[in-house]
Amino acid sequence: MNITFSKDIETLRQAILDQGRVIGNDILKVDSFLNHQLDIPILNAIGRAFYDHFGHLSIDKILTAEVSGIAIAAIAAQYFHVPVVFAKKTLSKNLDPDTWEGSVYSYTKGQTYQIRVAKRYLQAEEKVLVLDDFLANGEAIKGMKEIIDLSGATMAGAGVVIEKSFQPGAEMLKSLGVEVHALVRISSLENGQINL
Amino acid sequence: MNITFSKDIETLRQAILDQGRVIGNDILKVDSFLNHQLDIPILNAIGRAFYDHFGHLSIDKILTAEVSGIAIAAIAAQYFHVPVVFAKKTLSKNLDPDTWEGSVYSYTKGQTYQIRVAKRYLQAEEKVLVLDDFLANGEAIKGMKEIIDLSGATMAGAGVVIEKSFQPGAEMLKSLGVEVHALVRISSLENGQINL
Repeated sequence: MNITFSKDIETLRQAILDQGRVIGNDILKVDSFLNHQLDIPILNAIGRAFYDHFGHLSIDKILTAEVSGIAIAAIAAQYFHVPVVFAKKTLSKNLDPDTWEGSVYSYTKGQTYQIRVAKRYLQAEEKVLVLDDFLANGEAIKGMKEIIDLSGATMAGAGVVIEKSFQPGAEMLKSLGVEVHALVRISSLENGQINL
Repeated sequence: MNITFSKDIETLRQAILDQGRVIGNDILKVDSFLNHQLDIPILNAIGRAFYDHFGHLSIDKILTAEVSGIAIAAIAAQYFHVPVVFAKKTLSKNLDPDTWEGSVYSYTKGQTYQIRVAKRYLQAEEKVLVLDDFLANGEAIKGMKEIIDLSGATMAGAGVVIEKSFQPGAEMLKSLGVEVHALVRISSLENGQINL
């Protein structure tokens, strides 16, 4: 291919190809650097790549969802110079009762759960960038869009580290008016092969 | 008091005093900067303060537990130049079946749950620093110590952002041989007052 990538995207692509492990035909494990063990220089490359794409948009806040989005969003936020809010999956004594809620359907569990953000941490005048690790069915980002819409804030866009473009998330989100920018798109995981 | 604090500790103390909200006599909510919304400059101050204390110990890896420790550990790891591993609370298809497990008793829920780290991400020759947001009863850190002990790695110490020193965690951990360094110690939250 004649496509050239920035050094940061190349770092990420190489990590996926070198360290990614394929389970079945649709699961890519990148837990050596992205969502169990965290490789900080790779997270910095990811943060810079998001800033490279979204940095001109005058973002006020980054929204992500626990658990896997948190480290990505926190490191990326250093380039945007904005706070992060992460949507919570569980009610706890530490969460305000006054929250905006979004629904997320889990295909693996066959059920819908709620994600929540305390109302005080999203303001109507804010421009919000959504970041997450994976885009597959798009449910988490849809849930975060619901939260942003309820708050009256503006969703500036969504960035994901890895899009599994053989799954329908990007199309579904596009139909809702959300353009997703994926740093790396995976076209197939068939036969244990990672095809970028 | 005649105690002087580094600028980073002072930043953290001020955030706790200005933004902390007391619920009842023992809950301190710091969700405006530490565990729901994330204030990145404060997380950087926390990371530097941990490095200031533990930086001479030739740490190989930082271990924390989901959810609240992740952002703290990821930002702090930038100063230590080491990877992070976060222990997981839930079994999922993304977690290796081959894990080290630790037990955490939840006083609020009245039950014990397991936290897990994939064996491949802790090596016997590694020196591991445990970081977390709060120290109250010490259960999460005890669970992480169990994981480190099982792996054969060495626990270099434990750092917490906030110790509620009126709760028994620090004493209990000391009895297990774990010295905890708290960036800020809270002696009481009675009558809605934050006493450092």
